[in-house]
Amino acid sequence: MKFFTTAELNYQVNGPGTLILNVHALRTSQQAVSSETLIIEPYHKLEEICAVNGENRLIRLKLTENGPLRISYQAIVDHTYTAKNPAELFETPVDQLPPEILPMLYPSRYCQSDKLGRLAGHLFGHLGSAYEKVVAIVDWIHTNVEYRSGFSNVETSAYDTVTQQAGVCRDFAHLGIALCRALSIPARYFTAYAYLLVPQDFHACFEAYLGGEWILFDATKLVPINGLIKIASGRDAADASIANIFGDIQFSSMAVRCDLDDSNFVPLYQ
Amino acid sequence: MKFFTTAELNYQVNGPGTLILNVHALRTSQQAVSSETLIIEPYHKLEEICAVNGENRLIRLKLTENGPLRISYQAIVDHTYTAKNPAELFETPVDQLPPEILPMLYPSRYCQSDKLGRLAGHLFGHLGSAYEKVVAIVDWIHTNVEYRSGFSNVETSAYDTVTQQAGVCRDFAHLGIALCRALSIPARYFTAYAYLLVPQDFHACFEAYLGGEWILFDATKLVPINGLIKIASGRDAADASIANIFGDIQFSSMAVRCDLDDSNFVPLYQ
Amino acid sequence: MKFFTTAELNYQVNGPGTLILNVHALRTSQQAVSSETLIIEPYHKLEEICAVNGENRLIRLKLTENGPLRISYQAIVDHTYTAKNPAELFETPVDQLPPEILPMLYPSRYCQSDKLGRLAGHLFGHLGSAYEKVVAIVDWIHTNVEYRSGFSNVETSAYDTVTQQAGVCRDFAHLGIALCRALSIPARYFTAYAYLLVPQDFHACFEAYLGGEWILFDATKLVPINGLIKIASGRDAADASIANIFGDIQFSSMAVRCDLDDSNFVPLYQ
Amino acid sequence: MKFFTTAELNYQVNGPGTLILNVHALRTSQQAVSSETLIIEPYHKLEEICAVNGENRLIRLKLTENGPLRISYQAIVDHTYTAKNPAELFETPVDQLPPEILPMLYPSRYCQSDKLGRLAGHLFGHLGSAYEKVVAIVDWIHTNVEYRSGFSNVETSAYDTVTQQAGVCRDFAHLGIALCRALSIPARYFTAYAYLLVPQDFHACFEAYLGGEWILFDATKLVPINGLIKIASGRDAADASIANIFGDIQFSSMAVRCDLDDSNFVPLYQ
Repeated sequence: MKFFTTAELNYQVNGPGTLILNVHALRTSQQAVSSETLIIEPYHKLEEICAVNGENRLIRLKLTENGPLRISYQAIVDHTYTAKNPAELFETPVDQLPPEILPMLYPSRYCQSDKLGRLAGHLFGHLGSAYEKVVAIVDWIHTNVEYRSGFSNVETSAYDTVTQQAGVCRDFAHLGIALCRALSIPARYFTAYAYLLVPQDFHACFEAYLGGEWILFDATKLVPINGLIKIASGRDAADASIANIFGDIQFSSMAVRCDLDDSNFVPLYQ
Repeated sequence: MKFFTTAELNYQVNGPGTLILNVHALRTSQQAVSSETLIIEPYHKLEEICAVNGENRLIRLKLTENGPLRISYQAIVDHTYTAKNPAELFETPVDQLPPEILPMLYPSRYCQSDKLGRLAGHLFGHLGSAYEKVVAIVDWIHTNVEYRSGFSNVETSAYDTVTQQAGVCRDFAHLGIALCRALSIPARYFTAYAYLLVPQDFHACFEAYLGGEWILFDATKLVPINGLIKIASGRDAADASIANIFGDIQFSSMAVRCDLDDSNFVPLYQ
Repeated sequence: MKFFTTAELNYQVNGPGTLILNVHALRTSQQAVSSETLIIEPYHKLEEICAVNGENRLIRLKLTENGPLRISYQAIVDHTYTAKNPAELFETPVDQLPPEILPMLYPSRYCQSDKLGRLAGHLFGHLGSAYEKVVAIVDWIHTNVEYRSGFSNVETSAYDTVTQQAGVCRDFAHLGIALCRALSIPARYFTAYAYLLVPQDFHACFEAYLGGEWILFDATKLVPINGLIKIASGRDAADASIANIFGDIQFSSMAVRCDLDDSNFVPLYQ
Repeated sequence: MKFFTTAELNYQVNGPGTLILNVHALRTSQQAVSSETLIIEPYHKLEEICAVNGENRLIRLKLTENGPLRISYQAIVDHTYTAKNPAELFETPVDQLPPEILPMLYPSRYCQSDKLGRLAGHLFGHLGSAYEKVVAIVDWIHTNVEYRSGFSNVETSAYDTVTQQAGVCRDFAHLGIALCRALSIPARYFTAYAYLLVPQDFHACFEAYLGGEWILFDATKLVPINGLIKIASGRDAADASIANIFGDIQFSSMAVRCDLDDSNFVPLYQ
């Protein structure tokens, strides 16, 4: 499936600073970027870096001139989503987890899994397999947490959302991650362009490590899981921010799109 | 200087599980492990792994038999500490930071730097250099935070300590890290064996990225900075736990020592 | 039923200060104090005051001499507990609540009912009557929260306990109160001497306003509800502390007892 | 001075419920309400109650019909502000505080004074008198906390504001109260109509118990202290909400005014 993704970000530069953006589509075996363009107005020399896990594709801009700044990213992404057979999504015991997966068991800024052990045990501990647990977590979040713009903010964490039960995609993802880790299932955050998301925006989901690979889950159930174009992964939103701003640079506005020119798309929902 | 470090940890295994221990002295250019022994009673096959940053030396034990478990680690470590000239400890602008350093600017489980921006600006923003800021942070913590066993717990974070102003070495380190990051100075956590620490225990400190390298700070000022034998580093204590326990394994007791057989030791305090 | 209650509290006075103690058994229509003695060693003039709700019986001591301080309180209390008929425990609509009850609907230091609205609605909103809701709250807490000494501390609140699911009687009471208020059921905290509590200690429970009066609930289910001798009520533990200390006065030790010389006692559990 | 105060509140009633409003100007020796009007459209029978401290003037409305609801309150208030001589604002020792004042020493929902003891001691403990401490608290808040709409929300408490250092009048008041109580100075919250507040809105301030009476402080320093028409006091905003809503009643809009027809007004700022 060929997806067209667009992100346009506008800032106001009021002083010298650095902007690190993470809007480039990831290049993976299931996601080929066949074409992409990045325009920065006014022109700035940019640096492409791979950070956090050596995989996320960031750009770093040193800003020295005040005034408006506009970043436009466009990509054509060939994306294949293959639904897994749940029977193959076995749990990897902690003693066999690849060492680089271990940090995805530990608590992080927005995913305080260390505080959710009893609660996760009470709600999901009786379930048989890790896969069943993750599916139950996704369903529990979807049922109990209200999708509500403006309720949470950039400091809201899973510890808040598990009780307050309202938030946006980011909060849903953080809570899913925290509950998985609390059950010793490795989990990580990722950001994506999302086909059919209304209104169009960046999206956030999570992955659990099952069957020896990272399997995608979206507790918001707002969009088809096979219409997600992955941008970046990390422990939580701290690792995979769309933008990290250093200096007096104000965010002004943003426009994001993810389109598909293919009449054969069959939406898959979890 | 030749240091003798010892850690003995006792657990009670009540069911199958996995224990991941991080007590091995790090091998660095300034810290050579000339000899080390690890004894596990009863005998278990262990796996040595490097995790978090590819540098920390962990062992992973799959536990299948119930009963007491005893782990003894002993090492002789040749350690050189070279005090830096503050004049060389320049700040690396964010636009020039090596990409792998960037995550050490982001908030983490116990270091919510995103919430401390205004406070850090008010307290330290007026100071000239990054080095001066870090020194002032260390002094502020040392002056205002009471070293007090039992006040904090494993969930205590920098956001608590900055207000409640009491805690142990781990809390001092987390607060130092959070304040540095809030000022856009990369900072990380590390654990250590500590010569002259009374009572003998594992110690926790932090490092700030200055002059293009990681510079060690200890806001507790309890021990000479040149008597610290590094064990592990990470974003915070979540990355560098002495032990991560999966399964029904109870911690029983611990004994830690760090000795020095050298009459020429000149203690350096920050 | 005639109960014998005893509280002995020991302090170390290190400087001038004031101690406010709230250990006197309440005098109510169901609880008659037939005899009581208070001994303060060394002798201090004390002041008896009624505070918080004009009902709690406090004593206030001005301390000017350093050294050990010992307070012994003994009372014989005639106590009648009458189980209510659930059918009579109707809900009073907010528009008919006596004005002095209204504050018991509002959030307080340890009972952040304002943050628990959605969660309480999800767990208990479907139940028919206020009484059924309170019973379900008590059962939910009893099932999900582990009674565990040393897990929580004096700063722990219902917002913590609802997620972390461990604590002591005080935490159980706070959570019960917060969930009631989140459902617009007035609820308040109270402290008590508790017959058959093992080990003997002060106890904390809560009351919900049902059928036009305050009805007692104990989510710990540790003791018979008809063996509780009430000490003080308030919004939460902030209002009904056993002791409020002003100045450098250290708590040393405490011994509490509640005995009954009556072979006809039939324990009632909720 | 004759002040004209107006509050118009609009709600949308979507189901049966109860609305408790606290917009009436308080009647005190320094504040005489010479005339007042309350209009409720459509007409509802209302009940006037005094709650929290027996002094606040609330109205309670039982709402049974869906649709828009409009409440208009207008009052003419004769208000006298007398600046106190700081020399008379002595501290009342805890052993001499009237019992009804004691709860204003205890932590409350938004004023967790129990967590601020060390910090308050470090910042203000060295100052001589209680009055000097309160003045220093007001100045510290004014200097360090940024007045910023939209930063905080209804759940924000003093524990957040002391670190995050941004908020609105309510947050400034809560922090002032919490710091006073942490130093054993009784403090309470109050709401007011505020002459010269831009934009016009309800205002929140705090009072400290000094010289045997409640003395007014406003850490925002946004308005003259002698142009405040008091509405309600309490432990914190939980006690003195402008509106408490029970049921599905949505707030729509609000307009508040406080005018003065007197050319002799001399604004006093703290």
